[in-house]
Amino acid sequence: MAHTPAVRTDAQRHHDPEVRGFASDNYAGAHPEILAALALANGGHQTAYGGDEYTEHLQQVIRRHFGARAQAFPVFNGTGANVVALQSVTDRWGAVIAADTAHIHVDECGAPERVGGLKLLTVPTEDGKLTPELIDREAYGWDDEHRAMPQVVSIAQNTELGTLYTPDEIRAICEHAHERGMVVHLDGARIANAAAALDVPMRAFTNVVGVDILSLGGTKNGALFGEAVVVLNPDAVRAMKHLRKLSMQLASKMRFVSVQLEALLAGDLWLRNARHANAMAARLAEGVRAVDGVEILHPVQANAVFARLPHDVSERLQKRYRFYFWDEAAGDVRWMCSFDTTEDDVDGFLAALRQEIAK
Amino acid sequence: MAHTPAVRTDAQRHHDPEVRGFASDNYAGAHPEILAALALANGGHQTAYGGDEYTEHLQQVIRRHFGARAQAFPVFNGTGANVVALQSVTDRWGAVIAADTAHIHVDECGAPERVGGLKLLTVPTEDGKLTPELIDREAYGWDDEHRAMPQVVSIAQNTELGTLYTPDEIRAICEHAHERGMVVHLDGARIANAAAALDVPMRAFTNVVGVDILSLGGTKNGALFGEAVVVLNPDAVRAMKHLRKLSMQLASKMRFVSVQLEALLAGDLWLRNARHANAMAARLAEGVRAVDGVEILHPVQANAVFARLPHDVSERLQKRYRFYFWDEAAGDVRWMCSFDTTEDDVDGFLAALRQEIAK
Amino acid sequence: MAHTPAVRTDAQRHHDPEVRGFASDNYAGAHPEILAALALANGGHQTAYGGDEYTEHLQQVIRRHFGARAQAFPVFNGTGANVVALQSVTDRWGAVIAADTAHIHVDECGAPERVGGLKLLTVPTEDGKLTPELIDREAYGWDDEHRAMPQVVSIAQNTELGTLYTPDEIRAICEHAHERGMVVHLDGARIANAAAALDVPMRAFTNVVGVDILSLGGTKNGALFGEAVVVLNPDAVRAMKHLRKLSMQLASKMRFVSVQLEALLAGDLWLRNARHANAMAARLAEGVRAVDGVEILHPVQANAVFARLPHDVSERLQKRYRFYFWDEAAGDVRWMCSFDTTEDDVDGFLAALRQEIAK
Amino acid sequence: MAHTPAVRTDAQRHHDPEVRGFASDNYAGAHPEILAALALANGGHQTAYGGDEYTEHLQQVIRRHFGARAQAFPVFNGTGANVVALQSVTDRWGAVIAADTAHIHVDECGAPERVGGLKLLTVPTEDGKLTPELIDREAYGWDDEHRAMPQVVSIAQNTELGTLYTPDEIRAICEHAHERGMVVHLDGARIANAAAALDVPMRAFTNVVGVDILSLGGTKNGALFGEAVVVLNPDAVRAMKHLRKLSMQLASKMRFVSVQLEALLAGDLWLRNARHANAMAARLAEGVRAVDGVEILHPVQANAVFARLPHDVSERLQKRYRFYFWDEAAGDVRWMCSFDTTEDDVDGFLAALRQEIAK
Repeated sequence: MAHTPAVRTDAQRHHDPEVRGFASDNYAGAHPEILAALALANGGHQTAYGGDEYTEHLQQVIRRHFGARAQAFPVFNGTGANVVALQSVTDRWGAVIAADTAHIHVDECGAPERVGGLKLLTVPTEDGKLTPELIDREAYGWDDEHRAMPQVVSIAQNTELGTLYTPDEIRAICEHAHERGMVVHLDGARIANAAAALDVPMRAFTNVVGVDILSLGGTKNGALFGEAVVVLNPDAVRAMKHLRKLSMQLASKMRFVSVQLEALLAGDLWLRNARHANAMAARLAEGVRAVDGVEILHPVQANAVFARLPHDVSERLQKRYRFYFWDEAAGDVRWMCSFDTTEDDVDGFLAALRQEIAK
Repeated sequence: MAHTPAVRTDAQRHHDPEVRGFASDNYAGAHPEILAALALANGGHQTAYGGDEYTEHLQQVIRRHFGARAQAFPVFNGTGANVVALQSVTDRWGAVIAADTAHIHVDECGAPERVGGLKLLTVPTEDGKLTPELIDREAYGWDDEHRAMPQVVSIAQNTELGTLYTPDEIRAICEHAHERGMVVHLDGARIANAAAALDVPMRAFTNVVGVDILSLGGTKNGALFGEAVVVLNPDAVRAMKHLRKLSMQLASKMRFVSVQLEALLAGDLWLRNARHANAMAARLAEGVRAVDGVEILHPVQANAVFARLPHDVSERLQKRYRFYFWDEAAGDVRWMCSFDTTEDDVDGFLAALRQEIAK
Repeated sequence: MAHTPAVRTDAQRHHDPEVRGFASDNYAGAHPEILAALALANGGHQTAYGGDEYTEHLQQVIRRHFGARAQAFPVFNGTGANVVALQSVTDRWGAVIAADTAHIHVDECGAPERVGGLKLLTVPTEDGKLTPELIDREAYGWDDEHRAMPQVVSIAQNTELGTLYTPDEIRAICEHAHERGMVVHLDGARIANAAAALDVPMRAFTNVVGVDILSLGGTKNGALFGEAVVVLNPDAVRAMKHLRKLSMQLASKMRFVSVQLEALLAGDLWLRNARHANAMAARLAEGVRAVDGVEILHPVQANAVFARLPHDVSERLQKRYRFYFWDEAAGDVRWMCSFDTTEDDVDGFLAALRQEIAK
Repeated sequence: MAHTPAVRTDAQRHHDPEVRGFASDNYAGAHPEILAALALANGGHQTAYGGDEYTEHLQQVIRRHFGARAQAFPVFNGTGANVVALQSVTDRWGAVIAADTAHIHVDECGAPERVGGLKLLTVPTEDGKLTPELIDREAYGWDDEHRAMPQVVSIAQNTELGTLYTPDEIRAICEHAHERGMVVHLDGARIANAAAALDVPMRAFTNVVGVDILSLGGTKNGALFGEAVVVLNPDAVRAMKHLRKLSMQLASKMRFVSVQLEALLAGDLWLRNARHANAMAARLAEGVRAVDGVEILHPVQANAVFARLPHDVSERLQKRYRFYFWDEAAGDVRWMCSFDTTEDDVDGFLAALRQEIAK
């Protein structure tokens, strides 16, 4: 590819590939192996809309991770994965029980309601995690037509607060839900980070403990884009193929989604990326703990560090590194590490933090 | 990237990069310059969800093509582009007038209705093209609450039948629609092929003649994935940003969509790809016309050849080259050329056609 | 009721209870027996939302008409009945095949699409009636995710053009639909007129010939308001109770819907009203046929007369009697008779017609 | 009306017009003046779908109550009124802030989400009442496309817990909402009880203090059925006519809805009915307070009494009088009075309560 003048543009001139921050794991680009995989999948014609060799082969890879009944349906993004998955396990009259911090509730601009016609029944939690007791606040009235019928419990692993369920905690939720005729959806936008943190295979807290359907994240794990709905319990799920299409999540050149997921999951790239991001968050947390005037808010279990510090310190620090306030009024911030965060990034950030807090 | 063992898989072994057919322009992969562009955009952190340098720069590129008021909103796929665009120019009570062959009516699994709550008012046409007279069959009753209110005319350029509107034909439609208080949407999944065939800039049959909003196709023009809603008349459009998100078409690592569109549009890649595909279709059509027993059905104006031939010939031919029946009962087939179709592909196909028809 | 000063208002002073026209059967008020029934059901407390004695008893009445498996779900209006019924026999990915003159397509402001997320696949017809051949124009592609899945055939009896299916015609449609895995919905907004015209029980062209679900009209048959979804084949239908509520068609004081339907259907009020309206339409048609310059357009089989006459004659006539143009450009009008149309009304109208056409 | 044999049915034999309970104000029938009004509106033809004299006249009545800009749109039921009203003041990307006890959240089977595509942002409250501070928990992020955009604050007067806002409290909410670009909807299913309890005109806590749109209840105030969306601030509202139709809330014989609302509102029937129901609740509460072992839970401000008493007492009492548990686990019950509750009903119930609690 000698000449690609089209892309040597102003945009590129303003893009410094050596600058990284702590704003989000989707501020990162793609892992080089992902780009290589795209190139390998290129060339020739492949049947569109999922009839290609890569999507076919992805099924084997998925079954190796999630058991013989698992089926992967690649989609574009996480909101798409969640809304397609939830539709496949609900009726028009169904409702979804979730934590009030759930991504499906606070970060999807109402897509579950607007695209899927879903009613969300949300529950306040301490740490972003549901329990059987918390589920019971909304799990009733199945025969009452005035009430949207609770048909799914949706949890996130890891949660939006960076916390983790143990496999046993998820098992208890699944048993509780199943006893009441509900199914369990797991939003795994960061499932790799969770598995790395728990040091167990992904199956250990999904299909093995009773999760019925999974949104499997690729983007935050190092892909350009691309997630999959993974059906773990086919008996609970209907018409995924049609729901993906009507939800506008069906890629025509699907080989380029599938090969990214394969590149992550066929070997250990998914785990390397996740472990690294988690390790960087641990390094960051350790450094932060040594700084007076900064409080770490939740257990740092994966690749997120939530902290509380003086507002002006945060503001000065944001001029040097990108990151977000989580609760601006309270002074809470979120620092995310990603597969490409370096030790130097962390150490530089810690130095900056110490400087700013000292002012 | 010395090692990418993850993707040297069975999938790849079954994928012959030298095999191409005539099934669809989305059976093709991506143009090499597209892959190169992805690599250039990789590295470092860029603001997610469209706050990146590439999406910013894409606006300039788009304005160069479509005028100073144009705004691009990258999305994942064509159905997404159409449904987001149509929502932005309709109210909850709105309806869309379209040809009954329109992609939004026959190929999107009801996404306009289900995601957007849109009512489609479809009109039979001879050749996939609307006219003011045809529009008038459904353009009435704006004040009648029993009727879904016609608010948009949606046309495709080129049409799903491979036919083309002249700029003047689109101008007449726009004037007709605007006089009646409606806006005009153009589904440009293959807009590059149309511009190449007409040998005019894309603006000549869009913003210049009154089109208000455009679905701009990238995938069939050589991208891996990626389209954009292009707002041409901002006065007619509301809340694109929110509609894209709630329609689940907001990419987090948007730089990788935008840079592909930039790679196509900043130089002449879009035009080279389209001209080539059109030329291959012309070569194919010319060859077919010399074959007794095969009838070409529509004017071959872009990269599609529609033909009628004996059913058994088609079936034998399909064992050698991939393509689809368009109307199986009638014996009609569609042969699509793409940016990567070679002269040898066409000549080989014509030879096969002659052989099979001679049997 | 000695004093009801509240309602001796200006409104009443402008309302002449002796003035009737031919605009629509819902311009009529309620039959006196309906008002009497409301009074009988009044008083005391009855369980809300359908737990009352009247709704309970209505089930017996419905079973007498439609067989032992029939279940009635009273709703407010015809659009509500249709959209609730269609939702109960479709999935989120389903489509409905209907004539392009169907009320669900042209007169419900997109409620099937917007409330139910339904895709309508409409077919042009000669006379408002579907046939197996016409159904086949849209009955295909069940496994194709790009296509909304045809799951229901919806017909109207009598049709919006005043025409009637024979029981055998409906049987053929049902067999055709069932063989293809689809169910059949019948929009019976004027089912009483149809039964009266065919001189058969309503069951003869519904459950007996295979119709799965029915919108049973009360309003146009002499009620104040009130229709019912009648489930004829419970195996084909899901969660009516929830769908009625979420579609906002669940009456709290349901006894007042149910008792009206009971008043119509327990005796022969439904049939008396329908026969009378049909007879008035026949009288009108007979008179019209004797008038030069007026052409009757469709067979007059129930309570509607469609005619073509000079536009200026219609306009003068409309100053004396209310009625609607059906196709104003063509000069087509629709004259509807109702349960309260009198012979004098018809004769007076015919005299006026003769006068105006003679001018 | 000498003969109405159709309705002398088994249903009527099981319906004792002298039995009343405390389950709900929609267990009551209709006030006799309502039936009389229906009879006065009957006869002759009136333009369907709201073109009748009664709907026209209703506008004057509404303007007398709610000021010169007010417009009434009669609908069938309360859920319909709420969902039509909320759609008229939101965009496709809008959200509604409400108490987590709101009827729109807990009692409408998800109709706001499913029919209107609305996102509800609910807030826990002490007493069912929002405040500016509580609103602020969800009133932010208008420009953030990841968040459903808060466009409406919806409150109920009186609330689902029987509590009341003062006019000043509602004024503060309206000012707070308006300053933030939001409008205010008031669910007035029991607005008459609120006005009676506060002893102010309905306008005093609606249009006068800034409420933009109102669901005006008729059913619980003594109608058979029928509510109205009352637009108070036409500048904030769009396309009510179309939204009512597409939401399946447009009555064809609308005169029969309008005349009921007129019968209630043109004179003082609305107020007599509400005052009576409130007085009966006050009598009940006074009696209950004298009974040891029963605790009244909320201030009794309108026609509801919430109480806590031993579960077994409630169960025995329910065999004699119909009423509902509100929170069965806590032993909380709700006793509703209606326009037809008599002093004897209350005294009989109190006697029964004393007897059962003494056992």
